[in-house]
Amino acid sequence: MDCLSRLRKNIETKVAISDEDFSKIASYFRRQHLKKKKDLLRIGDTCDELAFVCKGALRSYSIDARGVEHVVQIALEDYWMADLYSYLNNTPSNIAIEAIEDAEILLIKYNDVDKMCLEFPAMERFFRKLVEKAYSAILQRINSVKSLSAEDRYKNLLKNQPEFLKRIPLVHIASYLGMTPESLSRIRKNI
Amino acid sequence: MDCLSRLRKNIETKVAISDEDFSKIASYFRRQHLKKKKDLLRIGDTCDELAFVCKGALRSYSIDARGVEHVVQIALEDYWMADLYSYLNNTPSNIAIEAIEDAEILLIKYNDVDKMCLEFPAMERFFRKLVEKAYSAILQRINSVKSLSAEDRYKNLLKNQPEFLKRIPLVHIASYLGMTPESLSRIRKNI
Repeated sequence: MDCLSRLRKNIETKVAISDEDFSKIASYFRRQHLKKKKDLLRIGDTCDELAFVCKGALRSYSIDARGVEHVVQIALEDYWMADLYSYLNNTPSNIAIEAIEDAEILLIKYNDVDKMCLEFPAMERFFRKLVEKAYSAILQRINSVKSLSAEDRYKNLLKNQPEFLKRIPLVHIASYLGMTPESLSRIRKNI
Repeated sequence: MDCLSRLRKNIETKVAISDEDFSKIASYFRRQHLKKKKDLLRIGDTCDELAFVCKGALRSYSIDARGVEHVVQIALEDYWMADLYSYLNNTPSNIAIEAIEDAEILLIKYNDVDKMCLEFPAMERFFRKLVEKAYSAILQRINSVKSLSAEDRYKNLLKNQPEFLKRIPLVHIASYLGMTPESLSRIRKNI
């Protein structure tokens, strides 16, 4: 499926869009290829674009005071990715975003999201529902780190995001789940 | 300021609303008094309403396997509160919401938010921006737990939410900041 068809299908999971409106909506986005290991966003830069993944995989991560990376988000096809904090507050980002597979993405500027939403109320609705879902997912993730064992967190991932385990290096999976690579290996051996 | 004026002022920080539209918008909400220590939501119940705080203070919290409470959110006047995960997915909540001061709140049903947003695109925009802000705030909080010391987290709260320290019991503040009450006391003594 080409990049724009994928975007349209993603939008239409939440709202209906006519052909005419979609061609105007599509014109707000620009397409970018990103080689594996290349950065989409560097720590300290301001995130002023929202990315939709058409192909490949991205991860976002922060680096703590001891220099240890923490994976914040993993995005495959049909995921949206940004440092929303930097993006919304127009401040330097404290996370980085990089491709972990060769990727093809669509990008839209922050100001254009606002403009597009005023022009197309259906897109306002789409983005409201998208952010609601992202917010509820992150609440669930915080809660699972607090209340579930490492093994149960791994089992949840296996059930809900099996693609991650096929495509994403285990070192990133472990960090995403909030455990060491050694703990993850041990859990995988025991199951 | 009365409850509905406060709601209107809150909405108008993000979008403009006519008198006529506001009276229709207001009719979607119902008002409730909540005595200190009373629950708005119990663990295991489904959260089907979104609360706007007109007066008083609420907290939401989860309870881990060892029976320890973890404060998820604290809400004073002009804050919105819900278990968004339960609310959006129509599943039993694993957090509780209770009043920590006598409170006056406005409540709107989940289905009515959708209906109201279709009727008033400005409200769609308002809720998009509200959820975006909540989402970015939670990302920032996760990041601060990972990358800031307990002392710096306390200093941030002191700077950004001084009201919390005047009104919320320290045991809840400590939990909200992800530290023990003893650590919080020590930090407060040293500053």
